[in-house]
Amino acid sequence: MTKTILKRIDTTRDARLARLFELVRIPSVSTDPAYAADVRRAADWLAATLRDMGAEADVRDTEGHPMVLGHLKGPDGAPHVLFYGHYDVQPPDPLELWETEPFEPVLRPAGDDHHIVGRGASDDKGALMTFVEACRAWIDAEGKLPLTVSFLFEGEEESGSASLPGFLNDAADELACDVVLVCDSDMFDPKTPAVTTRLRGFVAEEISVSGADRDLHSGMFGNAAANALTVLTTILASLRAPDGSVAIDGFYDDVAPLPTETADAWTKLPFDGDKFLADIGLDAPAGERDRTVLEQLWVRPSCEIHGIWGGYSGPGYKTVIPCEANAKISFRLASGQDPERIRAIFRKHVEKRLPPDCKVTFTAQASAPAWALEPGNPYIQPVLDGLADEWGRSTTMGTGGSIPIVGALQDALGVDALLVGFANLDNRIHSPNEKYDLSSFEKGTRSWVHVIDRISRCG
Amino acid sequence: MTKTILKRIDTTRDARLARLFELVRIPSVSTDPAYAADVRRAADWLAATLRDMGAEADVRDTEGHPMVLGHLKGPDGAPHVLFYGHYDVQPPDPLELWETEPFEPVLRPAGDDHHIVGRGASDDKGALMTFVEACRAWIDAEGKLPLTVSFLFEGEEESGSASLPGFLNDAADELACDVVLVCDSDMFDPKTPAVTTRLRGFVAEEISVSGADRDLHSGMFGNAAANALTVLTTILASLRAPDGSVAIDGFYDDVAPLPTETADAWTKLPFDGDKFLADIGLDAPAGERDRTVLEQLWVRPSCEIHGIWGGYSGPGYKTVIPCEANAKISFRLASGQDPERIRAIFRKHVEKRLPPDCKVTFTAQASAPAWALEPGNPYIQPVLDGLADEWGRSTTMGTGGSIPIVGALQDALGVDALLVGFANLDNRIHSPNEKYDLSSFEKGTRSWVHVIDRISRCG
Repeated sequence: MTKTILKRIDTTRDARLARLFELVRIPSVSTDPAYAADVRRAADWLAATLRDMGAEADVRDTEGHPMVLGHLKGPDGAPHVLFYGHYDVQPPDPLELWETEPFEPVLRPAGDDHHIVGRGASDDKGALMTFVEACRAWIDAEGKLPLTVSFLFEGEEESGSASLPGFLNDAADELACDVVLVCDSDMFDPKTPAVTTRLRGFVAEEISVSGADRDLHSGMFGNAAANALTVLTTILASLRAPDGSVAIDGFYDDVAPLPTETADAWTKLPFDGDKFLADIGLDAPAGERDRTVLEQLWVRPSCEIHGIWGGYSGPGYKTVIPCEANAKISFRLASGQDPERIRAIFRKHVEKRLPPDCKVTFTAQASAPAWALEPGNPYIQPVLDGLADEWGRSTTMGTGGSIPIVGALQDALGVDALLVGFANLDNRIHSPNEKYDLSSFEKGTRSWVHVIDRISRCG
Repeated sequence: MTKTILKRIDTTRDARLARLFELVRIPSVSTDPAYAADVRRAADWLAATLRDMGAEADVRDTEGHPMVLGHLKGPDGAPHVLFYGHYDVQPPDPLELWETEPFEPVLRPAGDDHHIVGRGASDDKGALMTFVEACRAWIDAEGKLPLTVSFLFEGEEESGSASLPGFLNDAADELACDVVLVCDSDMFDPKTPAVTTRLRGFVAEEISVSGADRDLHSGMFGNAAANALTVLTTILASLRAPDGSVAIDGFYDDVAPLPTETADAWTKLPFDGDKFLADIGLDAPAGERDRTVLEQLWVRPSCEIHGIWGGYSGPGYKTVIPCEANAKISFRLASGQDPERIRAIFRKHVEKRLPPDCKVTFTAQASAPAWALEPGNPYIQPVLDGLADEWGRSTTMGTGGSIPIVGALQDALGVDALLVGFANLDNRIHSPNEKYDLSSFEKGTRSWVHVIDRISRCG
C-alpha cells in the first residue's frame, strides 16, 4: 500500500515544493506586531490547505495570533494522532547578511543535494509541510488515512507561546488523542532520523549591577571606587568552577539521574565529540570534566552568558569607571530541576557576592522545565521503525535545546508527545540564510508515510 | 607692589572673562580632524594675545596641531619659568546631555559662587588663562614682570601629545629655564590650593577573546562549546584578588615605597575617605584592604575595566554563545613600575588562563610611567607660600591621575616641573556641562601674582 503513496510523493515534487514556497512567502513573523496580518494570512492558508485535503479545519482566534485546527477522520478504532507544528517564524534580521530575499524561497544546488533557502524553510514551515504532504499523498492515492489525524498549528511559538496553554485547556476535549507528534527537531546526523526523547529546561535572567551614582574618572576615583564592570565580571566568573561545573550552592541537588536504559543506548550512538567540536573550530570541551561531550550537550545543566554591556566600547580608550554594567545569562536545566528554584538560588548567589555599596536588579525572562519521554511509550518503536523503513536506520536521542510546548502539550492532553524532525544542525534556523535540505523535505515526507503506516498497525 | 596688581585684577573682571569666553568659543577639539582649522585658530588667538601683552610669540607648526611659544623677558639674573598649558579640548559629546551650548560659555550663579560653563572652561583654557591674565595685570600695573617667563601652549594634549617630545627636543635651547609650571590639575579641596608632586602612571590595553568560528545556539552547543564571554569574564575576574589587590604575578615587584616625608605629610591632610566615597554614593573602598582610601587613590597601582562588549544586548533574550568578546582595561601605576613590563606580564597572565582552543588578541593603547617630584626642589616652598598668600593655606599632594606631559617636560628640559591648578574635583572635565568656578578663575589669577612675586625673590 505504501508503495503507491511513496510513488505519488516522488512524482509530485514540483507541486509540493510550490505549496511550501507559497507558505514561506508569507512573512509570518510573530514577535513583531507589524506582521500580524501576515501571521493571520499564513493561518488562513493552512486552514484552506487542510480543507482542500478533505479535513474539517478552521482558524481559531486567541488573545495573540490564531491557532489552526484540523481533523481528518480515519477508520473506527484506529489510533488518533495529534500533529503539532508552528507556522510563525523568527524575524529575518540582520537582513544584510542574507544572500537571497528571506521571504522569496529559492532552491539552490548544494553538493549532491539542494537547499530550500528562506526564513521558515526549516523552522518550522518545511517541517510541518512534510507531514501535511504525506497525508495529502496518502489521501490522493488511497482516498482515506489509516488513522485519525488532528492538526494543531500554532502562530506564536517563536514569541513565547503565550496563548497555547490556555487554548490547550479550553480545547482539551477536541484535542483528545492517543499520542502527539511534534515536528520541530533535528536528525541525529544527516543520515539518521531520530525520536528526541529528552529536552533540557531553561531559565533566563537579565542582571544589572550598579556602583557609584555616576560614571567616574579612573585617575581621580580609581582603585577606591567600586567599578560596576569589575563587580559584574567577578560575579559572573564565580558561576563556573574551574572544573567546568556550575558553582552555585545546591545547583545540582535535584538533577535526576539519566535512566540506565537511555545512557546505555547513547553509548552506542556513533557520536564523535572531538569531531563535533572540530566542526565549530574548537577542541576542548568547556563543561564538566567528568562528563562526555554528549552528556554536556544533551543532559547536563549549564550556565551561559549571552551578552555583556557597560562602559566605553568606542574607538581608542576612555578612562571611565562605569557606574552600571549589565548581562544576559541563562541556565539549561536537567530533568528534576525547578526553573524558579534555580532562578532563586542564582539571585541569592549574586546578592551574596555583591559589595555592600553596590546594587543589583534582576529581570526574569523565560523559563521552562526539562522534559523527558520515559522509555516504555508504545508509540516509540513504531515511529522508530517507520523512520528506519525510509532511512535504513533510526535512533532515539536527546537534545540540549528547550521546546517548552512539548511539556505544555503533555500536561494539557495527558498523553505523551514524540519529537520527530528532519532538520540538520547546519540549517541556520533563527539566522540569516536559513535552509532546509531538499532531502529533508523529500525523505521527511516519505518517512511520515511509513510512520503513519506503522502506527496504524498499533490499533 | 602686589597690592596694585591684585587691585588691577579685581577691577578688570569683565574684560578678563570676555577674553576667556573668546577662547572657549573656539571649538579646538584636537582628536577630530574636522576641527583642525579651529585648533589653529585657537593657537593664533593665543599668540596674538601674548603679543598684545608685549611678548615675542608665534605659532610653531608640528606634524600635528601647532604649538604656541612666547617669551616675556624679565630683569637680568631673575629666575626663568616656563609655563605650560594646553589650548585643545575634548570632544563635547554626548551633546544631548549639555544644558547649554558647549562652545557658547555662560556664567551661571551657583550658591555663593558662579560657574563658567563650557567645554574647556576648566580643562585647560580657564586654567591657562589664570596665568596669562596674572602676567597681563602685572605688566599693565608695573610695566614689566619681575622674572623671565616663557609660555608653551600645546594643541594635542587631549589626543596623546604625539608632537610634544620631538618639539621639546628640537626647541630645548629656546625652552631652557629654571623650573616648569604646569597648570592642569586640581586643588586639594575647594579652599586649599596644592602643588601636586606625584602622578600615577598608566597603561591601557584592549583585549579581544575568541572561541568558536561562529556564534552558536546555546541549546545545541551550550556547555561543551567555549563561550567567549565566559572566558573573558573569568580572565578579567582573575586580575583582582578578593583582598582588592591586583593578582598578576610580579605586579608589585618594582613599586617604590612612598618617601617617609611624603607619607608623613599626607597623614596630616584633612582627607576624609568616608566622605570622599559618600559623595559618589559609595561606602566600601574597593582597593587593597590594608591601604587607606588616600593611598588607594594617589599612589597604589590598580587595574580598572573601562568597557566590555560582546553577544546580545537588545531587548528580550537571545540564546547565543558569542564567538567573540572584548574589553578595554587599564592599569594605574606606582613610581618604579615600567608600563611596558606591566603590559607584558598582563598579557602573560591572560595567555596562561586562556583555554587551549580559544584565541586572544591585544591592542596596545597609551602608556606613561608614574611621576614624582622628589622633596627638595627649591621652588616648591615659594610656590606653596604664594598660594598661601592668597588662600591662607596650601599643601603638597598626590593625584591618582596621569599627566604624561609632566615627565616629558622634565626629561627634555632637565628641570623639575611643578603642577599647580585651581580646578575642583566636580568640574566635569571631559564630561557634559564642564565648568570652572568663578572663584577658581579669580583667586587662581590672584594666586599667580603671589607665586610670581615669591619666585622672583628666589633669584
